[in-house]
Amino acid sequence: MDWQDTFADRMDLIGDTAVIELLKLAERPDVLSFAGGLPDAATFPMDAVKEVTAQVFDDHGSMSLQYGPTAGYTALREWIAERMGPVEGVTATVDDIIVTSGGIEAMDLIAKTLLNPGDVVIVEAPTYLTAFSVFRCYGVEFVAVDIDDEGMRVDLLEEQLVELERQGKHAKLIYTMPAFQNPGGVTMPLDRRRKLVELADRYNIPILEDHAYAELYFDRAPPPSLKALNPDGVLFVSTFSKIFGPGIRLGWIDAPPAVIAQLCQAKLGSDQCSSTVAQRIVYEYGRQGLMDSQIVLSRALYQAKRNTTLEALTGHAPPGMTWTRPDGGFYVWLTIPEGIDSTSMLAWAVEHEKVAFVAGPSFYTDGRGTNQFRVCYSYLDQGLIEEGISRICRSVAHHIERRHRVSV
Amino acid sequence: MDWQDTFADRMDLIGDTAVIELLKLAERPDVLSFAGGLPDAATFPMDAVKEVTAQVFDDHGSMSLQYGPTAGYTALREWIAERMGPVEGVTATVDDIIVTSGGIEAMDLIAKTLLNPGDVVIVEAPTYLTAFSVFRCYGVEFVAVDIDDEGMRVDLLEEQLVELERQGKHAKLIYTMPAFQNPGGVTMPLDRRRKLVELADRYNIPILEDHAYAELYFDRAPPPSLKALNPDGVLFVSTFSKIFGPGIRLGWIDAPPAVIAQLCQAKLGSDQCSSTVAQRIVYEYGRQGLMDSQIVLSRALYQAKRNTTLEALTGHAPPGMTWTRPDGGFYVWLTIPEGIDSTSMLAWAVEHEKVAFVAGPSFYTDGRGTNQFRVCYSYLDQGLIEEGISRICRSVAHHIERRHRVSV
Repeated sequence: MDWQDTFADRMDLIGDTAVIELLKLAERPDVLSFAGGLPDAATFPMDAVKEVTAQVFDDHGSMSLQYGPTAGYTALREWIAERMGPVEGVTATVDDIIVTSGGIEAMDLIAKTLLNPGDVVIVEAPTYLTAFSVFRCYGVEFVAVDIDDEGMRVDLLEEQLVELERQGKHAKLIYTMPAFQNPGGVTMPLDRRRKLVELADRYNIPILEDHAYAELYFDRAPPPSLKALNPDGVLFVSTFSKIFGPGIRLGWIDAPPAVIAQLCQAKLGSDQCSSTVAQRIVYEYGRQGLMDSQIVLSRALYQAKRNTTLEALTGHAPPGMTWTRPDGGFYVWLTIPEGIDSTSMLAWAVEHEKVAFVAGPSFYTDGRGTNQFRVCYSYLDQGLIEEGISRICRSVAHHIERRHRVSV
Repeated sequence: MDWQDTFADRMDLIGDTAVIELLKLAERPDVLSFAGGLPDAATFPMDAVKEVTAQVFDDHGSMSLQYGPTAGYTALREWIAERMGPVEGVTATVDDIIVTSGGIEAMDLIAKTLLNPGDVVIVEAPTYLTAFSVFRCYGVEFVAVDIDDEGMRVDLLEEQLVELERQGKHAKLIYTMPAFQNPGGVTMPLDRRRKLVELADRYNIPILEDHAYAELYFDRAPPPSLKALNPDGVLFVSTFSKIFGPGIRLGWIDAPPAVIAQLCQAKLGSDQCSSTVAQRIVYEYGRQGLMDSQIVLSRALYQAKRNTTLEALTGHAPPGMTWTRPDGGFYVWLTIPEGIDSTSMLAWAVEHEKVAFVAGPSFYTDGRGTNQFRVCYSYLDQGLIEEGISRICRSVAHHIERRHRVSV
């Protein structure tokens, strides 16, 4: 069988293995890696999880290994719906919630439910790189809207919507991460959020709000979610990956019941239902208040890591290097002088300084970001962050100097 | 937001909720249900799972809740690859295996990787109904090939391939369940398997071999898998749902490494990776030999249920009703006289006899099967099977009599 000839056209769009290869490189034990967006395993509540799991097996018996409803374990859906009030300022009932096998599946189900080939999807520039793997499968066209220190620039979005209308096109979805954006680390303030939902509503475009990091704030909670500002127009996605542990593979969508019904149909042909045992563990753990306690500890841990990262940058960065200052989440986004290519700098940094990050172009639809890169401070040991950042700064300094030599 | 206008075209194809509604109906506590294809929870090894899970948390610590590789937990992939030898007669290495979040995800990833809109997919008639939910998302065209007591009729398949060629079309995938077919309960003998792989090879069409039930044989193992007969041309799919428990949501694909690489790209945008903790539990459970012991017990349990089902049919069936005799798996496929509609008979049977099954048309692409239906004997308590079958037989007898009255 000549397999190369049998692959679907969409595989040409998602077949970029450069990111996977780079991430593998970054997992070398001799390299200090700020590359992968992994939570710190120290936040995983192993003793409590062990206890809760034993309790689930005792209380639920073999039901915990049987098939479950496609929309999710009802008690978990109810618990998630209730929690949307205090945590997100959103009034929800069980009918608004579908449990998914993580945040990626949530996004994939939304894409499957809404997107036809050729549809326009608005994304932030830069945006979450795995979102490309999701959306590209559906043959969509991206329109990228730049972010600044306050998230997606809604003024530019409006210009794009006007331009699309002029071309006779209609955007089908706006994908945004308004709190502690990946990779930007920036958060959209309330007034801009209001403008965004108003604009989306005016143009009748659903918003996919990705709230993966929103609960991991430092000094204060982010502004109300977009979902809270316009419940009917927003498909809200979050995940237990960052507030519990990604190995459990669970997330959720809060959407109008008419959409939930379609998402269930889509999920039937994606994975039928999410893990019954995982859902019962998360429910039991959450119900006992253990998740909320875990989140308090996680915030403190990530805030300490953020502080160390920013202090190290201030101490070691060469002139001409700038970065964002996240109030939550996992990421700092760095900009270096034009003309330095972050992709080749990464290769150099891994080899000569034994440090890794993700180069900027991976987060753009159009190859921009060559002089930008992402640092994820969540995963590396606290005690190694300063050393790692100083290695990054040396790498940047080396490339600035080299560029200077070349131009002289 | 007017959500009805926003759904993708594919939702019209997969939006048939009739099956879901019927299955719900069948879950009424007062109804004896042969509808859902659920394993008997008595086969789930709860004590062992509880012990193994505690051990995983002790031995692997927080790694068991961290992200894992997209292709799966390496030790589990190795164990699956090794086991493919004795169980399936297939020589496999870790590079041939991707772990999936159940059998449905396995099929979805294969569809995503291979199928363009308009591609022709060959399916059996009747076939696994959820396969339609998977494939329809990709906008494919189905060509259905009838089964008989020996599975897919390869002579008819050849006629179809000739006809497709005449139309200038090329089939992109052959989906088959050669052992204990769902819903037919039939198994393809060795000589027909040889003809099938030879034919597929000649026409250069990949086979998706669904082996979900193959290990649950009764008196003797089914013939060698299609994968064993043509390793390069077959994408082999199986699941831990029937040999461990579906609530764990794990399955696997054995495919050439070039295909595995593409499947990993597809999975990155579907759910990124399968549950780390679930994979470690299944690995540890399997490694200790517990799965193979469980399978021996499951075979005996399902064989006893099959026996009771067939004896009850022999004892109670009215003249004009025929059925298949499965040598493994969960299903008996029944045919009643032409002119009796199994869909309306089901509604009547639920109301008047408090018994449920799945009507035939759900398993066909083209509305056939109106005088056929599926009985799943795996889930109902052994002690209720005879009563349930006698209710089904009374329902059929009632409809035969009524039809007779109408025609007189």
